[in-house]
Order: sequence, then C-alpha cells, then structure tokens
Amino acid sequence: MSDLDIIRRAPFNAETPDRALRLSHTPSRQVYVRSNFDVPVLHDAHAISIGGLVDAPFDISVAELSLLPQCTIDVTMECAGNDRMSMQPLPAGEPWRHGALSTVTWTGVPLRRVLERARVGTLALEVVFQGADTGMRDDAESLVSFERSLPIAAAMDEDTLLAIGMNRHPLTPEHGAPVRLVVPKWYGMASVKWLRRIDVRATPFDGYFQRQRYVYDEPGGITPVTRMRVKSIITAPTAGASCFADTVVKGWAWSGDGAITRVELAVDGGDQWREVELGSPSSPHAWTPWRCVVSLTPGSRCSLRSRATDASGATQPPVVDWNRLGYGNNAVRPIVVDVMQG
Amino acid sequence: MSDLDIIRRAPFNAETPDRALRLSHTPSRQVYVRSNFDVPVLHDAHAISIGGLVDAPFDISVAELSLLPQCTIDVTMECAGNDRMSMQPLPAGEPWRHGALSTVTWTGVPLRRVLERARVGTLALEVVFQGADTGMRDDAESLVSFERSLPIAAAMDEDTLLAIGMNRHPLTPEHGAPVRLVVPKWYGMASVKWLRRIDVRATPFDGYFQRQRYVYDEPGGITPVTRMRVKSIITAPTAGASCFADTVVKGWAWSGDGAITRVELAVDGGDQWREVELGSPSSPHAWTPWRCVVSLTPGSRCSLRSRATDASGATQPPVVDWNRLGYGNNAVRPIVVDVMQG
Repeated sequence: MSDLDIIRRAPFNAETPDRALRLSHTPSRQVYVRSNFDVPVLHDAHAISIGGLVDAPFDISVAELSLLPQCTIDVTMECAGNDRMSMQPLPAGEPWRHGALSTVTWTGVPLRRVLERARVGTLALEVVFQGADTGMRDDAESLVSFERSLPIAAAMDEDTLLAIGMNRHPLTPEHGAPVRLVVPKWYGMASVKWLRRIDVRATPFDGYFQRQRYVYDEPGGITPVTRMRVKSIITAPTAGASCFADTVVKGWAWSGDGAITRVELAVDGGDQWREVELGSPSSPHAWTPWRCVVSLTPGSRCSLRSRATDASGATQPPVVDWNRLGYGNNAVRPIVVDVMQG
Repeated sequence: MSDLDIIRRAPFNAETPDRALRLSHTPSRQVYVRSNFDVPVLHDAHAISIGGLVDAPFDISVAELSLLPQCTIDVTMECAGNDRMSMQPLPAGEPWRHGALSTVTWTGVPLRRVLERARVGTLALEVVFQGADTGMRDDAESLVSFERSLPIAAAMDEDTLLAIGMNRHPLTPEHGAPVRLVVPKWYGMASVKWLRRIDVRATPFDGYFQRQRYVYDEPGGITPVTRMRVKSIITAPTAGASCFADTVVKGWAWSGDGAITRVELAVDGGDQWREVELGSPSSPHAWTPWRCVVSLTPGSRCSLRSRATDASGATQPPVVDWNRLGYGNNAVRPIVVDVMQG
C-alpha cells in the first residue's frame, strides 16, 4: 500500500487515501500533493523578497524567519479541484476524486508580522505571492510562474502564515520547502508553495493562475475561486465495505465561510435527513468531527449521504453548479456499504 | 466471490458483477435480479389465462407452450433503475449501480402466436400482463400484483416472447419460472415474470406499476418508462484497476430506439472525443461490442468515458434529466484507471 493515491507523476499530484482521511490529522506522508510544475530546488540561503507598495522593502531568509515567534495551527485544506470526478459532464483537469483534502498542523510566522515590518502603503489592495515553480502551459504564451494574490484583508489575517513546518517537522520539498504560504479558509491554490516573492499592489492582479485558472467559468460569467465551500465527508464505514447493521457513521465537515453548525445524514435515497452529533474541531480552521449511530437493513446494500451547513447559513447542494474547469464541487456525495446479515 | 452483487435479500435484488459484464452472454447465475415481491411458488400445472377483448379466451399450460414452435433470441435487458446511484440528488429506490444489466439467450413462443389464437378484437389498445408475485406497498392501499401493460403493437412484435428458457436451460425461479414475458428493446419492467394472466383491453391500464412506478416523474410532468435509452459501458480496462499505457478499451452499447451507429471515447475530462470501432451484435436485440486502442500517460490516473449514438440520432447525454423515482439514467459515466509506469 503506498502512502498516496497517485494521479500524475510529473508534475507530482496525489490524493490522500481513504484510510488517512479517517484521522483528525493527516500524516505528512499522506498529505495530498497538488503541483502545477516540477518541484523547484531551492538553495539553503533561500530568501523571500517583500516589495511593491511598501515603504520598507526587504528580503528575509528562511533562517531569519525561523528565529521569529512562531504560531502553530491546525488547518483543513482542500484543493479547489477536489471531487472533480463527480462533476457531470466531466471537466478537463486532474481527475481528483475526494482525497485532495488533508488536515495539517502548520508552524510559521504570521504573514502580518512581515507585512507590518515592510510598512504596507495605505493604497494597498492585494498582495501577490510568487512561488519558485515555473513552466510552460498549453494556453499561455511564455513561461508561467505560479503566482496568486490575496485581498489585503486576508493577507493581514492573524492566521495567514509563512509556514516552515508541517506536523512539527520541517516542510518537505513537495509541500513547498523551505517556506510556503498557508491561508486558512481558502482552497489550497491560495497557499503558494516554494514562496520567493511577496508583492503588495494597488491594482488587481491578473496573472495566469489568477484569471485563467482557479476561476469559476460558468455559463453566467467568470468569478474567482476563493474560500472553501461548506462540505462534509463520510469516513466510516468505508465506501464499498461491509459493515454491521448497527453501525456508527462518522466523518468530517468544514467550510471557509464559518463554523459548522449542522450535519445531517440520509440513509437510502430520497429526502429523509436526520441530524447528527457534532464534536469539536482541533482548531477554528480544522474540520469538525461528527457521528451518528444508525440501524441499517441486514443483508442489503445501503447508501449513506452527509450534508453540512455552516454559520453563514450555506448548506451543501445536491448538485453543484457546473463550471468549465471543475472547481468547488461541494455537492452531497453518496457512498454505498454492504450491510452484513444479522 | 459470489455470483451476484446483492442489493437486498428480501425481496431478492442483485446486480451482475463487473467481471460478468465483460462477457457477451451473461451466465445465468450472474444475470441481475429485480424483484418487487417475494418469488411466488407456482405448481407444475401452471397455466396462463388469455382473456379480455378476445373472441376466443383460453388457458394454456406451460407444458402446452413448450410443445409449440420456439424462437431463440439474444436480448440485452436493463433495469429502468440501473445507475440510479449516479443521479444527483440521489432518488429513493434500490441503490443500483451499473450492473442491473444482462444479455441472455431467451427461448420461447412469440406472444403473437398466442394472441392470434385468442383472436384479438379490433378495438384492442393494450395488453396487460399479470405476474403471480404480489405484496403490500407503503403507498398502495391493498395487496398489489405486479402488472404491466404493453401497447398492442409491441405485444404483437414477432420478437416479444413468452419465454420458458434462458441460456438454453429452463427458467430459474428468480427469473420468472415457469414462464415470463420478454420484451426486447424495453426496460426490464416490461418483461413480466411468473406470468399468470394476459388481458387484452380497449382502454389504458392504470395499475400501480403502470402509473405510480416506472414513470418519469419530472418537474415538467409524468411520462411512462418504455424503451431503453441509448447507453454504453466500458468493460475493459476494469474501473479502478491498473492497466498498461497502451491498452485496448472495450465495452458494449445498446439502445431500445435503434441500432448503435456510433460510439465515442474520451480520454481525460473535457470535450475531446474519438470514434471507436464497432463490432456486430449477436442479435438485433443484443448489445453491440466496441473497442479502441489508446495510449495513456504512464504513471498517471486516467479517466475514460464512452458515449453511444443510435439510429434514431439519440446520443447519451452528459447528465440525465433528473426524475423523482430515478429511472432511465443513460448519462455518460466516467471510470478511472491507474496507468502503470513504462
């Protein structure tokens, strides 16, 4: 059994396997990997440049960063393309099933500390983050860097980190070593890996990964992909496995738009839902555990569905609005289990 | 490994497993079973009554039927609820995946011969077939028999059989012994099992299984489920399995509305389709084999989709129009495979 379910070897893309999704904290070797280009090799003295609309631009090395006060926080992160395989019609893009999802304990310096030191100008609108990963794209004319922007308010959030550690060890190369951004609440594309440049701007950024990718390209128009939509998964019983008739159904729920306020479970198709018991997340940015004891029909195949609601009032839809690039699929996803005879 | 993938034990409902779907003819022990009620036990002298709007009503025993000239024909039959599990939102009803589908060599007497002997009246509109299976339903007031009608033209079709044999052996109890109807082109509900009465009528039949089940209950209204919609499946490589980079993709395509004229294959998401090579079906009512050689990216997960078109011009849709009872899902269904390293 390999640690990850591989989707593509070059660039490396791989899903967290089902058995790891049962754990509150995803082991580092089982954290999903989303790479647009090959892993860049960065030298030991790698530094980040902070510039643009700031009064005091400066460079900071990873060694210097590691001497600043660190925060440690659990963050559930999902790839915007997660569950693309369940979208009808199937969009182009990596064929993610439901494992582009992990919860990691990140350690790093709040980005805000670094921006404060650079003295951000009052006209600042966005902050652009550039990774050291670059490559060609079929639909771009020249070499593209992975670059994404955040609104200044999200960049100044106390919990947006320049992370140098994951699960209490140094970042690994495929997860952005030596330093990456971690933006809680947002889909994973915002958490730029192999960070090399931070650029404060007064105008909206329109780079390749900001305007041509990670956008909801829908019949009605194009809107940016930002925070994670409310969603839930069932982790026990395992999809496709056999289970006892009296069984505990468990899983996780999360949202970038507020705390989870309700999770419901449906046994069999149709529109009968029951509310389940919620546990406490390990941090405000980590998924919320839930559980429910059910009695299923012995000797039958049974479908199970979970549906989460967050503090903003948003609930998982039965079907996601289709978009050309296949992002943000938070639709309710059924699993089936085979219930053993009594 | 059991012969069937069981969905429910009482009444017995079970799917044909993937490995059996690879075969042009489904072995009898692996033919899907759809039962609405328990299997009725019929005595050795079981006879069918032919009555209603006929000049010469009569009963015919199975022994007598078996002495009449027999036809043998391969028929692909699909349950109207097949692929219900892929519908969003998930409708109530048995959680069929894609295995409520089989191809069987049926042997029997053309129904037309029996109707001719009874001398059907000129005002005949429909023929009602009653099975010996009965039971209670939550949404019906009294005991319900499984009864379905056919338009007189479909009943008089040369290929509509009173079948007493499957795969060159006597019918088995779960498949309708001693005698059942087999209606090529139509979804399986038309092929009434455990047949005990044939009733010719001048008015439309409105029994429970004609008006409350096996109808497309859509936002726009209610229409009856009749012939099988055009559809295809991929049988090799196996969904979820590993395959070589250079591989033969194979499957079947069928339709109740005309011969298969085209099957296309898409490798990866998006809208790039290539036409595949069609083989010959074993009968006009059996599925059409198709195949295509593809080169997939080594070391990657790859999605594959097939899409069939029939002589009526109908093509499988990317998403089926949702209906409350979950029938007729002929949408394109992707599978994923893991492509081995070179």
